[in-house]
Amino acid sequence: MRVLILGGDGYLGWPTVMDMAAKGHEVCAVDNYLRRNMAQETSSEALVPAPNLHDRAGIFRSVADKAVRVEIGDCADPQFMEALFQDFRPEAVVHYAEQPSGPYSMMGVREARRTFSNNLDATFNVIWSAIQFAPECHIIKLGTMGEYGTPNIDIEEGWLDVEHKGRSQKFLYPRQAGTLYHTTKVLDTDLLWFYVRAYGLRVTDLMQGPVYGLSTAESDMDERLLPNFHYDDIFGTVVNRFLVQAVAGIPLTVYGKGGQTRGYLNLKDTLQCVDLALKSPVDAGDLRILNQFTEQFSVNQLAGKVKQVGDRMGLNVAIKSIENPRKEPEEHYYNAAHSGLIELGLQPHYMTDDVVASMLEEVIRYKDRIDERKVLPRVKWS
Amino acid sequence: MRVLILGGDGYLGWPTVMDMAAKGHEVCAVDNYLRRNMAQETSSEALVPAPNLHDRAGIFRSVADKAVRVEIGDCADPQFMEALFQDFRPEAVVHYAEQPSGPYSMMGVREARRTFSNNLDATFNVIWSAIQFAPECHIIKLGTMGEYGTPNIDIEEGWLDVEHKGRSQKFLYPRQAGTLYHTTKVLDTDLLWFYVRAYGLRVTDLMQGPVYGLSTAESDMDERLLPNFHYDDIFGTVVNRFLVQAVAGIPLTVYGKGGQTRGYLNLKDTLQCVDLALKSPVDAGDLRILNQFTEQFSVNQLAGKVKQVGDRMGLNVAIKSIENPRKEPEEHYYNAAHSGLIELGLQPHYMTDDVVASMLEEVIRYKDRIDERKVLPRVKWS
Repeated sequence: MRVLILGGDGYLGWPTVMDMAAKGHEVCAVDNYLRRNMAQETSSEALVPAPNLHDRAGIFRSVADKAVRVEIGDCADPQFMEALFQDFRPEAVVHYAEQPSGPYSMMGVREARRTFSNNLDATFNVIWSAIQFAPECHIIKLGTMGEYGTPNIDIEEGWLDVEHKGRSQKFLYPRQAGTLYHTTKVLDTDLLWFYVRAYGLRVTDLMQGPVYGLSTAESDMDERLLPNFHYDDIFGTVVNRFLVQAVAGIPLTVYGKGGQTRGYLNLKDTLQCVDLALKSPVDAGDLRILNQFTEQFSVNQLAGKVKQVGDRMGLNVAIKSIENPRKEPEEHYYNAAHSGLIELGLQPHYMTDDVVASMLEEVIRYKDRIDERKVLPRVKWS
Repeated sequence: MRVLILGGDGYLGWPTVMDMAAKGHEVCAVDNYLRRNMAQETSSEALVPAPNLHDRAGIFRSVADKAVRVEIGDCADPQFMEALFQDFRPEAVVHYAEQPSGPYSMMGVREARRTFSNNLDATFNVIWSAIQFAPECHIIKLGTMGEYGTPNIDIEEGWLDVEHKGRSQKFLYPRQAGTLYHTTKVLDTDLLWFYVRAYGLRVTDLMQGPVYGLSTAESDMDERLLPNFHYDDIFGTVVNRFLVQAVAGIPLTVYGKGGQTRGYLNLKDTLQCVDLALKSPVDAGDLRILNQFTEQFSVNQLAGKVKQVGDRMGLNVAIKSIENPRKEPEEHYYNAAHSGLIELGLQPHYMTDDVVASMLEEVIRYKDRIDERKVLPRVKWS
């Protein structure tokens, strides 16, 4: 299949590009280095510098004998996107091309505007490029579990059947997110759902939880193919920060009470999920929503896991609660459905002690590169 | 109070400008003539040409002895909006500055992009101009009843209490609209709700139904102060089209089965509602949502009303069903709450036979200006 991967330089994008190419698809990887630029601007570079996307593709070709087409351009630019669709005529589009950081989106007006314009315009352009030049293509869009927020009822898989005054209606599950970044994904889903109904598009919206892991079948072939590992407060996830803090010998910083609970998954499972979505296309006029995670953890549980494994490795890990820079419930109900991808065939890789240990070992390899100034919160909500 | 009215040249904007100025507020009216330009581009001009906004303000000053400040500029331009907020420091903002036509937004990619960018960027700029330069101001945002669509359960006033598996949660009432224009207002509401929570803004979101009427206390003073009356398929409402068809002696064109039901209100009541919202500001961090209409009618009921009154006036009105150019349910459940504004003190002006007759009389005055080519559907959904 001709698979267009937007945001192909990202933490998920690059492993997806390699995975899809390894599976024999004709892959076009698109990126404009927005995240690299924002990371540099905010002094939040990844632990290990990555070669540029052309070079990554070159290394991958030499190692795996698989060619990948690379296009450097801005998915928020309609001319660029339309020309790309016209030329490549994708059968599937994997749309990761969004500013991916909650904290970045909360820094101020400039960062908010950049997040808002980039993310909404990219999605709008995907929709209209598909309508015009590839109406049958399957759009696989990366949403986020963060769209749902932390409601006091169970989170269902995309939709909610509501009984009200003796009548019933199925709705998109109501969403309210905790950062502007997550809110742009709420808007993306609203917009996609409208155009699915109006123009019969085929869309899978993957509500993904935070992803961890540095190892995939392809990235393990050569260290220059490593996924981007951000451990800072802006582009890093809580798992990555904890791993780096454990290795650097500084306390794991829990924001507030640490009861913040989310659904997590291994990077290997992201690749499986996208592949499973690709292999089971949706009908014209259908929006399929899948909750993409395998296990729920609270921040305290994650800290405990990293401490337990780290201590066994002699890292002598401390845990410290600090003032929460975010506006978010620190103790809340959380129970989210996630059976759709299992039904499609997902074989989860859980966060075992071995997995945590291997991530810690990977970070230890690059211990000298850790910049402790990147780890503590630099962005406060309002 | 210092009241900033964005979209002050519009069908609602201009009467609101006059009403607020007549009530003694310090009013700044802002517009960039986007609707006028789009109407000209699509050959959808209003029945009676309106003087430009500066001239309207001049006429109003000479007739009513009330000064209104006029600023011509684009609310989607952040520099313009921020400078305006810094200079005028509004205590209240009435935000009408959106491309208001469903059919326009469904014409094609160019019109969709224009609608999407203009509406979302204007709202984003209102939010951030307020955060930066007028954090205490009350933002009164024009939403639409169309955000709710036509669910099979009662439409509540903004929020829905959901019981699910023995637990409960209050959500924004789930929304799914029938055009891109209406969808941009769904996104507006999502965005406002996020920033209300994140930055403690004060917002009233008015879910308004279609408005009819040409008469307000101020516009009745001079015919040059008349609200814009669009009767075409793109910017006109179904009520206006029926009035013009009745006067022109052409059949009232019902789209499909005509069971499409919505909540309608008189222009005089829009003015009352905005004034009532202004007089009862919301707390910091509150999003108040009010359903702004006074009566529900189906399209068939509206056609029947116009025919009945028109026939009595000797117009000999015919009604004809034509193929529906839209994708929409033509028969559906519809029962929408609308008690919030009544509780604030709204005294409704209902669509009586006298009101229909006076609107027909007004159209008869300008009968020679009717362009029949504007009346039939020129835009099909997809």
